[in-house]
Amino acid sequence: MTVKGLTLPELVDACALAGVDWVGLWREPVREYGVGAAARLVREAGLGVSTLCRGGFLTATGAADRAAALEDNRAAVREAAELGTDTLVLVCGGLPPEDRDLRSARGRIADALEVLAPYAAEHGVRLAIEPLHPMFASDRCAVSTLEQALDLAEAFPADRVGVCVDTYHVWWDDHAPAQLDRAARAGRVHAFQLADWVTPLPEGVLNGRGQLGDGVIDLRGWHARVDAAGYPGPVEVELFSDVLWQRDGRELLTETVARYLVHAAP
Amino acid sequence: MTVKGLTLPELVDACALAGVDWVGLWREPVREYGVGAAARLVREAGLGVSTLCRGGFLTATGAADRAAALEDNRAAVREAAELGTDTLVLVCGGLPPEDRDLRSARGRIADALEVLAPYAAEHGVRLAIEPLHPMFASDRCAVSTLEQALDLAEAFPADRVGVCVDTYHVWWDDHAPAQLDRAARAGRVHAFQLADWVTPLPEGVLNGRGQLGDGVIDLRGWHARVDAAGYPGPVEVELFSDVLWQRDGRELLTETVARYLVHAAP
Repeated sequence: MTVKGLTLPELVDACALAGVDWVGLWREPVREYGVGAAARLVREAGLGVSTLCRGGFLTATGAADRAAALEDNRAAVREAAELGTDTLVLVCGGLPPEDRDLRSARGRIADALEVLAPYAAEHGVRLAIEPLHPMFASDRCAVSTLEQALDLAEAFPADRVGVCVDTYHVWWDDHAPAQLDRAARAGRVHAFQLADWVTPLPEGVLNGRGQLGDGVIDLRGWHARVDAAGYPGPVEVELFSDVLWQRDGRELLTETVARYLVHAAP
Repeated sequence: MTVKGLTLPELVDACALAGVDWVGLWREPVREYGVGAAARLVREAGLGVSTLCRGGFLTATGAADRAAALEDNRAAVREAAELGTDTLVLVCGGLPPEDRDLRSARGRIADALEVLAPYAAEHGVRLAIEPLHPMFASDRCAVSTLEQALDLAEAFPADRVGVCVDTYHVWWDDHAPAQLDRAARAGRVHAFQLADWVTPLPEGVLNGRGQLGDGVIDLRGWHARVDAAGYPGPVEVELFSDVLWQRDGRELLTETVARYLVHAAP
């Protein structure tokens, strides 16, 4: 998503040039290209798929909407398996219209996980619940903290449901370091993503993330915490940014690798 | 601030027409009008001043900046006393340039409170620390939760330092109800403010609050919690909104009273 402007073949080439061995893919461009074709493309390039983003949106109240959401998530699981990644990231959904109850929304997420976690496991895929910054609580994700994500995940074995830790979403939370330890002890850190926090936020607040080093997050500190927690996986950089997306994707990828080394790498 | 477009005399008249007995004032219009004149104006109208907003911005690192912030807050205390309110609301400040450490910022806030709390008490004024939504953590307020606000307040007697509970800032936080109880048990709920949460947020996210009932917050539930906590004071409605500010202030005030009765009042 950092280099949204690149086609999948361009992305694969750019990763090779930049020395990037893993890539987190999003469903929309993968489905547009064809899941099987995308899987061959990355496999033949020797590129690992760190995660597929994203399943989720599990908070609907109506039976038909809930059934449709489950079916869409089963499709996401199959796509993840076909792409060869073991991790499907979940953005769990916000409040449906007229609903004001975040706790009940999280209850419906828990119910959906009861269905999806075994299904994913049958396909060799684990689910990674991503807490989103509280500014997204109403319209995107009722899971706002690592603590809430782990409360949901711990109803399942660690190899089935864990969490996705994104610095952009958790940096402000003074409970997050302890919750990261809690996740690590249980082997539930299934994905780690970096983005920096910059202000002013743009309208809609979705696409205002900062290039690594441009913002206020202690990225190196968070990386060290995740390393100390024993997270063995790839590190993703996910920069939703209308500003960065205006630039050439190859140049942006090269810059991002350099920024990672200067501002985040141990 | 809900009816920012009204002058102070217009505000006083509009409150009388709308049956509003208390008003929360902001420093800038009060100083522009003259503190003494504003105090006479509200006193002669029989209008109580619930709070003065705002002191704070206590996170600077340089000695000169810190001294200037303390001096400005001492002035705010004197203004509050002159206006006849017992409560000065504090928006405590975010991260200074090049700083990435929210915990240290809160430490500097604690240091400043050591100076300001006794000074305020001498003037019959108590300080109300307002936690701001985490989307303001970097640029406006390093105190993001009621828990953090109470951790700061509890270094002082309850009649000197407490908290300001604003639904807009705390609604998403599943720890907030228990922290509200914690505040109530100690007599530290010094102000209560209502605003609704609506999306999409506007650029800069400051002035995108929703009229009561237009958003997703269970306002009646929060009001009931604050009542159950034994809060005896006035209820403020604080609607920072570029959309609402375009309307006639008198009409907006009347609507706000009606919305309060329908959507928030017990």
